[in-house]
Amino acid sequence: MPNERVGFVGLGIMGEPMAGNLLKAGFSLTVWNRTPSKADALVAEGAALASNPAAVAAASDIVISCVSDSPDVEAVALGTDGILEGARAGTIYIDCSTISPAVARTIAERFRAKGVGMLDAPISGGDIGAKAGTLAIMVGGDVADFERCTPVLEAMGKTIVHVGPSGSGQVVKLCNQIAGGLNLMAMAEAITLCRSAGVDAARMLEVVSSGAAGSWMLTNLGPRAVNRDYAPGFMVDLMQKDLRLVLEAAEELQTPLPGSALVQQVFRVLQARGRGGDGTQAIVDALSLLGPGNQS
Amino acid sequence: MPNERVGFVGLGIMGEPMAGNLLKAGFSLTVWNRTPSKADALVAEGAALASNPAAVAAASDIVISCVSDSPDVEAVALGTDGILEGARAGTIYIDCSTISPAVARTIAERFRAKGVGMLDAPISGGDIGAKAGTLAIMVGGDVADFERCTPVLEAMGKTIVHVGPSGSGQVVKLCNQIAGGLNLMAMAEAITLCRSAGVDAARMLEVVSSGAAGSWMLTNLGPRAVNRDYAPGFMVDLMQKDLRLVLEAAEELQTPLPGSALVQQVFRVLQARGRGGDGTQAIVDALSLLGPGNQS
Amino acid sequence: MPNERVGFVGLGIMGEPMAGNLLKAGFSLTVWNRTPSKADALVAEGAALASNPAAVAAASDIVISCVSDSPDVEAVALGTDGILEGARAGTIYIDCSTISPAVARTIAERFRAKGVGMLDAPISGGDIGAKAGTLAIMVGGDVADFERCTPVLEAMGKTIVHVGPSGSGQVVKLCNQIAGGLNLMAMAEAITLCRSAGVDAARMLEVVSSGAAGSWMLTNLGPRAVNRDYAPGFMVDLMQKDLRLVLEAAEELQTPLPGSALVQQVFRVLQARGRGGDGTQAIVDALSLLGPGNQS
Amino acid sequence: MPNERVGFVGLGIMGEPMAGNLLKAGFSLTVWNRTPSKADALVAEGAALASNPAAVAAASDIVISCVSDSPDVEAVALGTDGILEGARAGTIYIDCSTISPAVARTIAERFRAKGVGMLDAPISGGDIGAKAGTLAIMVGGDVADFERCTPVLEAMGKTIVHVGPSGSGQVVKLCNQIAGGLNLMAMAEAITLCRSAGVDAARMLEVVSSGAAGSWMLTNLGPRAVNRDYAPGFMVDLMQKDLRLVLEAAEELQTPLPGSALVQQVFRVLQARGRGGDGTQAIVDALSLLGPGNQS
Repeated sequence: MPNERVGFVGLGIMGEPMAGNLLKAGFSLTVWNRTPSKADALVAEGAALASNPAAVAAASDIVISCVSDSPDVEAVALGTDGILEGARAGTIYIDCSTISPAVARTIAERFRAKGVGMLDAPISGGDIGAKAGTLAIMVGGDVADFERCTPVLEAMGKTIVHVGPSGSGQVVKLCNQIAGGLNLMAMAEAITLCRSAGVDAARMLEVVSSGAAGSWMLTNLGPRAVNRDYAPGFMVDLMQKDLRLVLEAAEELQTPLPGSALVQQVFRVLQARGRGGDGTQAIVDALSLLGPGNQS
Repeated sequence: MPNERVGFVGLGIMGEPMAGNLLKAGFSLTVWNRTPSKADALVAEGAALASNPAAVAAASDIVISCVSDSPDVEAVALGTDGILEGARAGTIYIDCSTISPAVARTIAERFRAKGVGMLDAPISGGDIGAKAGTLAIMVGGDVADFERCTPVLEAMGKTIVHVGPSGSGQVVKLCNQIAGGLNLMAMAEAITLCRSAGVDAARMLEVVSSGAAGSWMLTNLGPRAVNRDYAPGFMVDLMQKDLRLVLEAAEELQTPLPGSALVQQVFRVLQARGRGGDGTQAIVDALSLLGPGNQS
Repeated sequence: MPNERVGFVGLGIMGEPMAGNLLKAGFSLTVWNRTPSKADALVAEGAALASNPAAVAAASDIVISCVSDSPDVEAVALGTDGILEGARAGTIYIDCSTISPAVARTIAERFRAKGVGMLDAPISGGDIGAKAGTLAIMVGGDVADFERCTPVLEAMGKTIVHVGPSGSGQVVKLCNQIAGGLNLMAMAEAITLCRSAGVDAARMLEVVSSGAAGSWMLTNLGPRAVNRDYAPGFMVDLMQKDLRLVLEAAEELQTPLPGSALVQQVFRVLQARGRGGDGTQAIVDALSLLGPGNQS
Repeated sequence: MPNERVGFVGLGIMGEPMAGNLLKAGFSLTVWNRTPSKADALVAEGAALASNPAAVAAASDIVISCVSDSPDVEAVALGTDGILEGARAGTIYIDCSTISPAVARTIAERFRAKGVGMLDAPISGGDIGAKAGTLAIMVGGDVADFERCTPVLEAMGKTIVHVGPSGSGQVVKLCNQIAGGLNLMAMAEAITLCRSAGVDAARMLEVVSSGAAGSWMLTNLGPRAVNRDYAPGFMVDLMQKDLRLVLEAAEELQTPLPGSALVQQVFRVLQARGRGGDGTQAIVDALSLLGPGNQS
């Protein structure tokens, strides 16, 4: 059984199965969630339930959080009864949320001042990857902290890469969302041209996916888009949140990203129609909406 | 030895190795090229050299052309001493060039009026695929013609898909170029954000390529782009020609493709700097040029 | 009465009133139109009707054409029975159509070889300006030819500017369309934000039009757009044709114009919905279509 | 002499001359600025200097603020020693800063709860308009409050329009910036095409400005851009701040604004090169940078 006692804050669609994998790997686990009932299954499997994030930290050597956005991380990490309050020098804090690289660096500095290491470790792979323990985890922070936490990270993911100092993990995650967003745009425009030309889009996907224009999105979400199956996967609203982080980081870094800016506007068409809960493959509808004769 | 006598018009960087693979597969082959010396190696391996495309057609059951753009195909197919002049009822004409779907349909009608079937069969896979016989071939035209030509196509390619009636092969090829172009834009913006943020782009590629934002471009051209290796591969000038065909087809079909329109403008930045002969991975420079401190 | 005998080819919505103003100014006028009945009113006012463009040229010292697009000008200028056939050394040919600058230069060279000067002289101001004789005319070609033709041009327009050698008039006209298109986009996005925010767009126009963000489009077409009055004015289909010329010229000059490329895609949304005959102020609907709750 | 005692918080490049015009109009004036020395000239002309915004409010019937961005307004209005602390029921608070419409509404509610009316009253016209008293002022809030404040507003501006309830003034100001930004893009692309084509851009401006594609920007900033005179006027950094507010408001309202999103990316090219202090006409360089042979 691993020696490190692990804490987990945030038992949502991603966090709950990640925490479950830690239990399965034999880690002693303390958890907290805003809605405590979400912890029931984990407690039944042996996790301890703490009354707040500070208590999780006090009971753990390594504390993980997995929440929604920068303000949520600031609240559970730095707020009243937050992780920083409960953490001791020598503890390590791992945040698996996708947030602003700048906020990640600021939080890391606050923890470092108390002798607590922090890794920003955003994840990719969806709820399926979270359950299967096959997430990609892109990690920023000190190498020594990364190495110490590797067994914990390996219990939750498969591709685990240290990419640089604090904030780097978030930058790489944003790069992931840039690429994902534009690959989805590629899929959408290809399907749209097919439909306008009266060519079978499924056949097109078959041949294009196998060659130099292929992508994970084309192979995996293309067929769903063609079949008008919009079940998520990854929701439009979450992609928009991540693209907002991308464009805020680009603003801070004075870096023009015209493609990402365009993709954000296209996804907004879906939100404007109340479809923020659809999977990202619904982007094909945002384009089809504009074209002739195939308004959805 | 296959029964069909095959003709090949256009022995360029793609056509010459494709014709060579037909010889290797045992087909009787007649060839023509504007610069006849390009045929020397094929003639040495047993091909006959004809004096013009009409003569190629007269000597063949199936005639293939592989040239550059719509006007080139119109010239070798419909012009004086062109393929249509030499072809008999029962001949099949296969055009492997990437051209306008509308032009492909028009040419097919002209051949059909003389009892000659035509397949539009654009290819993907580059000179490497042409040599290795591993091209993807997306074929539009009559199913019976496609089936009759399958042995010939299989001598040149690996993924061979009939995608619909005349013109459909070109539409699917344009979809391929849409997807390729936007996947390259994805690669470029991800690398650019990394560089601006001071994060190692090679590490980013490693983790992003393996997940849901991965693509052939990211895996295969990403490392070259990061290493500023701009050798083609597929040249910027050719990508621009194909994006022009994409946008002309979209205009004809009244289909908005804002992403492809943006990508065309971005590649133009390279052409404006005399870099049309670079490989398409150079797109990363078009973006870096705009950003802070990392002007190439 | 002016000495120069003038010919006019192309009596459409613009050409007919322009020719009428030449008559009013006292010029001896010979005309031709594909549909001859369009010339009836002019003939009744004293114009001679010729049987083809060559005959117009043979009867004139200065020949004007005003047709739709590059191929139309090539046909009436260079085709069988075209202006070039009938023109003598010393004649001047003025083309008032909006066409490609490159085609304008090529035609000018063909005429120059026969000793005939050519001015490219595209016009701006709409049918209202054509009737009122208040067109803006942007003229490319030799200064001496321009000066000789000034009385003729002044009979048709008000702002008459020589902008450079052959083709320059067309370049300036394309600049005019770039600016017009983007100013319309400005109008559309401003109105759209107002509507989404529940703010009275007419009030917004009132204050914005009067300041540094004001434009002719905002002042003149803004109120029509707000009132959903889509009568042309200048039709979406014609704006698209001109934006196509803009982007083709930009391609030839290897000049990225990302804003114009975007505007072309936005106008296409209207064409896809069968609204190519609406006035350009309908662009506001292309955007509103994308937004929440105010779909038209 | 007017009866209302007026307070002014924020004596920057805009606020100082606006306050001066209130003095000239005969209003009794109390002022505050973070750097008190900025108030010296006004005090010499008769203004009273207060020690904080609360003290300004306590001494005034109508309090005006003119600072930079949403957080600045929140600080002087709602912070410690802020305007809300010093204001009494019956006071009116006018904010002339350009900020988020949502923040403006929130602040208005806070003041309303204390019986203080609030007008959001952003201004347009630059420092020249502030000095000359010719600003455009777009006002959101209660009509009765607007009418009571009209004499004060008329002392500072010329075009003064009530556009709707709280927040509407800010929405209209954002529309103004959308239109201004896209009109500048229009100017930049027109000049760029001229330069690439070797046509005199000054001549182009002359003819285009006078017609249907004309705008204030083209007439007033076009010649400066052509002459590479980049002195502000209105700085790129401020335009970017306002475009950020535009896109945040559009996000909140789920309204796609692809043109404004593009313009923001183009202005960023200038910021990335350290030119955020240039006037907005420098946008022409962001485009020229991309084109052939005319890199600045």
